Amino acid sequence: MHQGDAYLTAHREEHLKQLMELLRIPSISALSEHKADVRRAAEWLAREMRRIGLHRVEVMETGGHPVVHAERMDCPGGPKALIYGHYDVQPVDPVDLWTTPPFEPTIRDGKLYARGASDDKGQVFMHLKVIEALLAVEGRLPVNVKLLIEGEEESGSENLERFVSAHADLLKADVVVISDTALYARGVPSLTYALRGLAALEVHVVGAKGDLHSGAFGGAAPNAAQALARLLATLHRPDGAVAVEGFYDQVRPLSQEERDSFAALQFDEQAFMADLGVTALPGEPGYTALERLWARPTLEINGIFGGFQGEGTKTVIPCRAGAKITCRLVPDQDPERVLDAVEAHLKAHCPPGVKVEVRRGGGAPAVITPIDHPAIQAAMQALTEAYGAEARFIRSGGSIPVVGTFQRVLGAPIVMMGFSLEEENFHAPDEHFHLENFDAGMRALYRFWHHLAENMR
Amino acid sequence: MHQGDAYLTAHREEHLKQLMELLRIPSISALSEHKADVRRAAEWLAREMRRIGLHRVEVMETGGHPVVHAERMDCPGGPKALIYGHYDVQPVDPVDLWTTPPFEPTIRDGKLYARGASDDKGQVFMHLKVIEALLAVEGRLPVNVKLLIEGEEESGSENLERFVSAHADLLKADVVVISDTALYARGVPSLTYALRGLAALEVHVVGAKGDLHSGAFGGAAPNAAQALARLLATLHRPDGAVAVEGFYDQVRPLSQEERDSFAALQFDEQAFMADLGVTALPGEPGYTALERLWARPTLEINGIFGGFQGEGTKTVIPCRAGAKITCRLVPDQDPERVLDAVEAHLKAHCPPGVKVEVRRGGGAPAVITPIDHPAIQAAMQALTEAYGAEARFIRSGGSIPVVGTFQRVLGAPIVMMGFSLEEENFHAPDEHFHLENFDAGMRALYRFWHHLAENMR
Repeated sequence: MHQGDAYLTAHREEHLKQLMELLRIPSISALSEHKADVRRAAEWLAREMRRIGLHRVEVMETGGHPVVHAERMDCPGGPKALIYGHYDVQPVDPVDLWTTPPFEPTIRDGKLYARGASDDKGQVFMHLKVIEALLAVEGRLPVNVKLLIEGEEESGSENLERFVSAHADLLKADVVVISDTALYARGVPSLTYALRGLAALEVHVVGAKGDLHSGAFGGAAPNAAQALARLLATLHRPDGAVAVEGFYDQVRPLSQEERDSFAALQFDEQAFMADLGVTALPGEPGYTALERLWARPTLEINGIFGGFQGEGTKTVIPCRAGAKITCRLVPDQDPERVLDAVEAHLKAHCPPGVKVEVRRGGGAPAVITPIDHPAIQAAMQALTEAYGAEARFIRSGGSIPVVGTFQRVLGAPIVMMGFSLEEENFHAPDEHFHLENFDAGMRALYRFWHHLAENMR
Repeated sequence: MHQGDAYLTAHREEHLKQLMELLRIPSISALSEHKADVRRAAEWLAREMRRIGLHRVEVMETGGHPVVHAERMDCPGGPKALIYGHYDVQPVDPVDLWTTPPFEPTIRDGKLYARGASDDKGQVFMHLKVIEALLAVEGRLPVNVKLLIEGEEESGSENLERFVSAHADLLKADVVVISDTALYARGVPSLTYALRGLAALEVHVVGAKGDLHSGAFGGAAPNAAQALARLLATLHRPDGAVAVEGFYDQVRPLSQEERDSFAALQFDEQAFMADLGVTALPGEPGYTALERLWARPTLEINGIFGGFQGEGTKTVIPCRAGAKITCRLVPDQDPERVLDAVEAHLKAHCPPGVKVEVRRGGGAPAVITPIDHPAIQAAMQALTEAYGAEARFIRSGGSIPVVGTFQRVLGAPIVMMGFSLEEENFHAPDEHFHLENFDAGMRALYRFWHHLAENMR
């Protein structure tokens, strides 16, 4: 048997007991009455980091809740990895919907129930135990590691970007490893190698000086709501593709390898539709639903408004109407260029008699680490070995702001090696963590550091 | 000189004094503290009606404010006309914007300032004085008349339909004459011979079971706001015409005579645009703006709503979005058939992945009295003679509910012979009435009854 696996198996009960200790601390970052608890969790981690042999362990101030920093840099010539995670948790309301209290960890059916079990204390803890195991079994780490465990992720990571920017030298690394994402499904080892980005804007259509009476003016006055509908309808082609000129110009195409890897997941579109309660999955033609969700950009109307919205009838011709729009971006789209294109489209398609006003919002580019990057390859090897099944490439259609922060400030590739499952109720009552992934995940992380050392030396 | 004109001129000062007496009564029907004032105005009218020689004068109960009824039916073989008007007035707030107090009638620059001066006490009073003049000068009326002067017009005519239905025999007439509309413009004798009708509905587009996160689902889930925009955009053709199949099927075309009469008004589209603050007057092609406003049906979006409408950005895919729609109808469109057509269109154009729900609202048909009707011709002759300028046919793009009531319940043609001007601030501070139309209007009404007797004998 693999020496690391043997060590982890031998110490499993002890590890779970320690994790439960951490889970008992109600480190809810959003609630000021838990401020001391949040710091207590940071200090628990710092103590544990020192105990297992990490260096330069420090609870560092951020202006908000502290971060815990540590490192072990005694592997000359080896790659430097920054491990990011968070020790704060979500609030627990409605607390009476929990089967067992959120801060009294309980194991049922091979799952550990507690707030933070999977998001993200459990996964942060796995990293500590793997470092401990490597040092115990091998006397040294195969790579250099830095740890940055924050306490404000669940309340918006308000101070993280500033902290990372201010300590860019301290945190400098060849790769950032984050264990805060989910596997594709139970029993499917999988690695998130890309996230979508975002670009936001608002469009307003302005007609007459004020709302008009539809009897006196209907037929010869511009109707802002009508013009808005007409304008918004031009944003997509009838087949579902975005019709904005240049919208797809910078999109990095999916490789055949990526498409094959997605297809191997056998995404069940029927089940997905049943889940949403819809009978079709409209979108860009030429791509599967999963490809569209993960690897194709979108343009979505998030809200639409104008004129009379109350009960009954009001015979008014609205003078203003508007819509909120966000685009999900993929590599290598530049948010500003996308906003330029959408703004130009909206202005070019302005219906007669009205004016179009565009208010640009913020944006963030997509994140991707190429699947042939040695760190990604190391993670895939480790996952395949630890789970005994071929690891799959997956993406996420959403954005994770902290990931963007690391990519932007540190310029390092990101490995999102997460072990939770979508069904584990993060942010909801009865959050839990499947212990099968606690075990397999640590076996994978143990192997990952070795493969990373080999691949990036 | 015409004997009637001579009489009216001779008694002008006395008539104005009497009108001012009526205008001093604050008969605001919407404010309960003026309940007694409203009745006082009804009784003032009843007294005056008796004094001038009308018969069967009665203040009749309606459940709300009373109506005043009277008649003079001693013209055997002559046409029977029902004169409708209202003696109640709008509230006067903001009262400090009045140059002189609303219930202290004052003449300035040939205009009589007071609440109700033009809407509608002044015009009701003109009818009484013309009847008085005819009886004084000629000893008899050339026609049979009934009068129905109500006290709830400014608060929605809540009891009128029931009253008219309950007293259909009492009110039965060959023609209904209403003096509560405006001339086209100062110095332009004009007669409103048609009003538009209305049909209302609401459409809702329903996507997934609930709002969805645009990161997790964007690209493969239906967006109700997007689908709504696409659906609404199909309701009009790019050229501005309504694209609903069958929408125009029942529309009575404008005759060349009507078009010529409208054209003679030399409607100033540039001034109209400047007034609205717009640079185009989009609408159905093939018609002037005035023709579209008065004689063509419309389909207007009165309100549009769905998804996130708050500050900032929310990356949501709305599961519901909707719009309120009203159509202005023209003769001979049936509101139910129009609603059928719009509903069928909306369902037929339902975008993929969503459901379309239609909630039908109420409707009312348009009102028209053909321009060759003898009563209309009588009014046109009278106006032309009294103003010394050719009278014009005009329409109104709006609806006047009481007119619909008379058409529906009594089945009689309507003559809307009104003498106010749009600029006279009805419902606003400094309501006034141009005395030139008080004078010319009575001269016209005096002649009208004679022409009506000739044309409809």
